Amino acid sequence: MRPTCKRCGAGAEIFLDYARINLCPECFKNLFERKVRETILRYRMIEHGDRVAVAASGGKDSSALLFVLRRIFPDLELSAIHINLGIGGYSDECEQKLLRLTKNLDVDLRVFNLKKELGISMGDFRNTVYKDRICAPCGTVKRYLLNKLAFEGEFTKLATGHNLDDVAEVLFNSYLYGEINQLVRLKPVLPSTHPKLVSKIKPLWAMTEMEDLLYASYCSLPFRAEECPFSRGTRSLERKKLLNDIAIRIPGFKHTFVKSHLKKLSPALERSVEVSSLVECELCGMPSSSKVCAFCKRIELAKGGKISNPEI
Amino acid sequence: MRPTCKRCGAGAEIFLDYARINLCPECFKNLFERKVRETILRYRMIEHGDRVAVAASGGKDSSALLFVLRRIFPDLELSAIHINLGIGGYSDECEQKLLRLTKNLDVDLRVFNLKKELGISMGDFRNTVYKDRICAPCGTVKRYLLNKLAFEGEFTKLATGHNLDDVAEVLFNSYLYGEINQLVRLKPVLPSTHPKLVSKIKPLWAMTEMEDLLYASYCSLPFRAEECPFSRGTRSLERKKLLNDIAIRIPGFKHTFVKSHLKKLSPALERSVEVSSLVECELCGMPSSSKVCAFCKRIELAKGGKISNPEI
Repeated sequence: MRPTCKRCGAGAEIFLDYARINLCPECFKNLFERKVRETILRYRMIEHGDRVAVAASGGKDSSALLFVLRRIFPDLELSAIHINLGIGGYSDECEQKLLRLTKNLDVDLRVFNLKKELGISMGDFRNTVYKDRICAPCGTVKRYLLNKLAFEGEFTKLATGHNLDDVAEVLFNSYLYGEINQLVRLKPVLPSTHPKLVSKIKPLWAMTEMEDLLYASYCSLPFRAEECPFSRGTRSLERKKLLNDIAIRIPGFKHTFVKSHLKKLSPALERSVEVSSLVECELCGMPSSSKVCAFCKRIELAKGGKISNPEI
Repeated sequence: MRPTCKRCGAGAEIFLDYARINLCPECFKNLFERKVRETILRYRMIEHGDRVAVAASGGKDSSALLFVLRRIFPDLELSAIHINLGIGGYSDECEQKLLRLTKNLDVDLRVFNLKKELGISMGDFRNTVYKDRICAPCGTVKRYLLNKLAFEGEFTKLATGHNLDDVAEVLFNSYLYGEINQLVRLKPVLPSTHPKLVSKIKPLWAMTEMEDLLYASYCSLPFRAEECPFSRGTRSLERKKLLNDIAIRIPGFKHTFVKSHLKKLSPALERSVEVSSLVECELCGMPSSSKVCAFCKRIELAKGGKISNPEI
């Protein structure tokens, strides 16, 4: 017998394992939108007068984020910022899908093309010390550029598509290796600590990767189907599989872990962490914890510069 | 081809997965003893003039502990304390094996028989709110009595057989549920915080459950073969299986996790935890965080008393 939707009694297509309920597509979409709205209100992510930039990759999460923000806050001043990383057909597909999505939503899209603007593409890092560990400099480059573009565009909030699985994965590693500075930064709202740093929000904090995928699919959003070719077999993907396997044995594992972190552990850890002071990078003028910022170091490295240890 | 011992070149019987080395039984025993000795010295667990009581259950861990302490510190003033829990043939076997072990080692054994001394046995908790969750009151009763006997025997240290797997399991749950008070108490040495509380030490902190089993087996120690009948299918055992499965995918997982906790997370958490003050229990006079201590409440419950919520 086909299961019925717990909300409306129609035929169900979705089983939310952590909540143990069956839902039809319409009720699922309503639930998704209600939960995102609740998350935004609970953590005061968006307030009156905010100008919100969505860090849009062309993937399911940030596309779902852009769409759901437009749905639940029709009057919100909303834009999308995209970094074209120059990863061949993959990056082309990301940008094409985003052009369609933002056109459908009538949302402004700002694209920063790494190759055109800086003369490098993400693949250039393969010739550096990073070799096949490109996710590390890619993260640095994206974080820097997204903030810079949001700052220059005078946005008050930068919204990213990080979901519950992303958060749980970073938490798992950070607790495993005792990375306290990383742990205390992992929260739904990261307030600005420098005039040139835009406050970051994670409206999909409470949604699983699967929920984002289902929402994007049921709303027929254009989004890239492929994973980044450089991310195959990375630790991050392996860890997410591991956490899914743990969640089979401990129902609600990811939800419980993230909640305990946010409500109990993070506030306790935060009391014993000193906030590092920021200076302005000698080369680009953006906030940095050292004389030359991580972004400038990475870009020089990709261009074949002589920085021997880019982590310093 | 049979693998050879990394230390002496003889035929190896043991593969230590976390260290990726093959060892013969003799070199394994030497390694075990050296590591326990290093752990004791590193955390200053035992100092000159200490009188050490080992909390001996008759199982592999505490039997290995008693034996290894006698081996590495032949002149140490050492005794064993055992609580006979009155769990039928299981408890009989525990006590019999301990009688043999302590006789072989010429170590004094003090047995506290729950049935004879207090008129209850651990199985009586099945008729209380605990039903099949007997591990909870059993832990409370054992912790209380072991401390009391060590205190009355004027021992300066109470050594328990907790191994790396035990520690990792408790840590995993405590981080999952954000139990900060539990987390900051989980360390190799728990100093006394009251004149009637004996300082607790965990000399097997760095040894895995498998290493304890191998050591106890290769040293031909008498120890009970069965697990406690009440522990079957408990969360604790399920979690240990899970952590072993994680360790297959993340080599050294348990070692890394415990090390990060001890070196980084625990000191940070400790700074934000207030030490709860202890009073003396109105009924028994032993240290307690409430008017009547947890032990007295549990015993009254097992005797059929009317305490409605033993957790209060």
